Amino acid sequence: MDVLHLAASLARHSDSADHYTRLYLTSAHRAAAKELQSWMVESGLRVRVDSVGNVIGRYDGATRDAKTLLLGSHFDSVRNGGKYDGVLGILVPMACVAELHRRGERLPCAIEVAAFADEEGARFATGFLSSRAMIGDFDRTWLDRRDADGVSMREAMRDAELDPEAAGSDPLNRKALAGYLELHIEQGPVLLDAGLALGVVTTISGGNRHSVVVIGEAGHAGTVPMQRRHDALTAASEMVLAIERRCGVTVEGSRLVGTVGILKVVDGSSNVIPGRIEFSLDIRAGDDATRIAAEDDIFAELEAIAKRRGVRVEMKRHSESTVIRCADRMQDLVAASIAAVGLEPLRLPSGAGHDAMMFARICDVGMMFVRCGAGGVSHNPAETVTAEDVDLARRAVLEFMRRFGTVVPA
Amino acid sequence: MDVLHLAASLARHSDSADHYTRLYLTSAHRAAAKELQSWMVESGLRVRVDSVGNVIGRYDGATRDAKTLLLGSHFDSVRNGGKYDGVLGILVPMACVAELHRRGERLPCAIEVAAFADEEGARFATGFLSSRAMIGDFDRTWLDRRDADGVSMREAMRDAELDPEAAGSDPLNRKALAGYLELHIEQGPVLLDAGLALGVVTTISGGNRHSVVVIGEAGHAGTVPMQRRHDALTAASEMVLAIERRCGVTVEGSRLVGTVGILKVVDGSSNVIPGRIEFSLDIRAGDDATRIAAEDDIFAELEAIAKRRGVRVEMKRHSESTVIRCADRMQDLVAASIAAVGLEPLRLPSGAGHDAMMFARICDVGMMFVRCGAGGVSHNPAETVTAEDVDLARRAVLEFMRRFGTVVPA
Repeated sequence: MDVLHLAASLARHSDSADHYTRLYLTSAHRAAAKELQSWMVESGLRVRVDSVGNVIGRYDGATRDAKTLLLGSHFDSVRNGGKYDGVLGILVPMACVAELHRRGERLPCAIEVAAFADEEGARFATGFLSSRAMIGDFDRTWLDRRDADGVSMREAMRDAELDPEAAGSDPLNRKALAGYLELHIEQGPVLLDAGLALGVVTTISGGNRHSVVVIGEAGHAGTVPMQRRHDALTAASEMVLAIERRCGVTVEGSRLVGTVGILKVVDGSSNVIPGRIEFSLDIRAGDDATRIAAEDDIFAELEAIAKRRGVRVEMKRHSESTVIRCADRMQDLVAASIAAVGLEPLRLPSGAGHDAMMFARICDVGMMFVRCGAGGVSHNPAETVTAEDVDLARRAVLEFMRRFGTVVPA
Repeated sequence: MDVLHLAASLARHSDSADHYTRLYLTSAHRAAAKELQSWMVESGLRVRVDSVGNVIGRYDGATRDAKTLLLGSHFDSVRNGGKYDGVLGILVPMACVAELHRRGERLPCAIEVAAFADEEGARFATGFLSSRAMIGDFDRTWLDRRDADGVSMREAMRDAELDPEAAGSDPLNRKALAGYLELHIEQGPVLLDAGLALGVVTTISGGNRHSVVVIGEAGHAGTVPMQRRHDALTAASEMVLAIERRCGVTVEGSRLVGTVGILKVVDGSSNVIPGRIEFSLDIRAGDDATRIAAEDDIFAELEAIAKRRGVRVEMKRHSESTVIRCADRMQDLVAASIAAVGLEPLRLPSGAGHDAMMFARICDVGMMFVRCGAGGVSHNPAETVTAEDVDLARRAVLEFMRRFGTVVPA
């Protein structure tokens, strides 16, 4: 069971012919889910698909009352993304179970491998939909959200033969859950710069997603003098630069970042002065105080820009997540597993958000990072890993499963 | 035949239920064309539809060899536009012919009233498609252009029962053409500020439409430090502000304006650093030298911004039109017609482009402006005119038709 080969095979299920994009419940996404199911069955996992389309495989423990170690990550992607983001955290644990199964080896804990259907949320502007459904925090208002083509999530679910009325009705059995481990590509350059294949995640940055609307005055591009304009796009451009400037203020270790990833000119024509702009704002930091201070400054600056230009700005806060700390015992166990395959266990924070943040609300979580090639680039087709690193990850995760099984609380 | 009533009726044919948008060859556009045809027939015009969907009505002159005075404007719109932009220049001449017809009055020249199917070009990013087809300058590469939904112009024409292979094959008979007059809402505040209902257009600003692509590096919004980013959107934002700044340099009478009306984040997601931005750039001025100097400066500045930020910029020049001067004899005749209804004939330039620019290549053109209410706003649902002004326009255009007929060269 060669993980890189499977990752390449899975990446063929793409919404686009010329690059890799897999959004929640598209036909490519459904085909990927089917393929994951059959690989899980081959690996000796007993598979179920839950109410939101998560594919969950179970490998029973040595005893009937064994608690469960859950390992998982996502198989949706951003648009034109990288093919290891998420997917490695499904395929590597699956390969570990395949090895246990081949050996007929049962552990003190049961293992569940989960393939999350929606983490990036690129289709319906959700975030962590899958893991939130699994911890019993599915937001039913999501069902009415529409994608760029006007298809609602409710309709997309029906197309995928899921019952939208049942969405989120089947969370995990918390009592049986002993812990959660997520293996993920680092999506940054720290391990690459340190010359190490694997790392122990200490904390996950907190972050907010906001939506901003700028309302100016549409007008004729040929007749309204520059001095009389209330152009929503030039106002928004000044706001984008203000966000970049404020988040670029370097405070050692704060890892503050701010990104406008979506910006739309509503009813835009080349010969019309833009009257309405909508943009997204994603702000994250390694500590919540730094992030909140930056948000306050940015919101005040956006108001000031709007006022000066005679436009209106409306800001709405969507999801908020505070900084998450991986449990000490999980960090130590990840470190020991990495050491066991002969590597120095570097500890590092995660700037990216992960499903682990959601599971941290109901159990101890740990994360292991795999070195990201090409300068640490991710959410980009250039994202890459080496076969050697993935093999080390497979051995370390298997080590983790065995060691976790021996220390699982009764 | 009440022009404002007809304009309100025509505006019901909209691509959107909650605002007025009518793009080339949509079902609303085709319904509007049908309605215009039937009104033209009622007005005593003999109607043909040409190869690109222009609706052209003819009212014969007193003699068989009478030359033709063409009057027209467009019935497509920008997205969320105003309902008089273009439409007045069809309905007012039509109402004039209706009056001639009712009186059984024939003029020394034949009158043709043309309703142009595409001037704004908001659906397929064209410009002056209709008038270019009529002067024998249809660009066949347009047929492969696709709208936002991926529908090609070729397909849209077939849906509208037009033969794309024949598009542009039936230009006007130039030899019979004696002149072109376009009545249009001013789309600016000059007549409003002067307290005058009508005006004589002297020149039409030249303009260019460019398309700009900025290529940065997509990356993860949580993990790439601000200092290591090559964000295509922040680069584009700086460019938008540079354009605004350069075009805001006031040179008395230059009427230089620059507008970014469309800006797209390609494959944008809220949690991805934008890797590719595409935007439109519309630059116009009352004299060509001012415009060209501004374009040169802007192109150099965009290159400099790209270089400093480590992104690439690609600029492509689309349509170019130089400043057009309305023929002196047409200006004088418009002025005399305005004076004949008791108004002072103010002369003013047009910052907006009009189909008249295309006809200026093959015959003398003139333009008459009607006062624009609401501060002179256009390309905006707030665009408005008064019934009194429209009635004055109708009387002045009828005056023009009669006077033109008496001076038409043999």
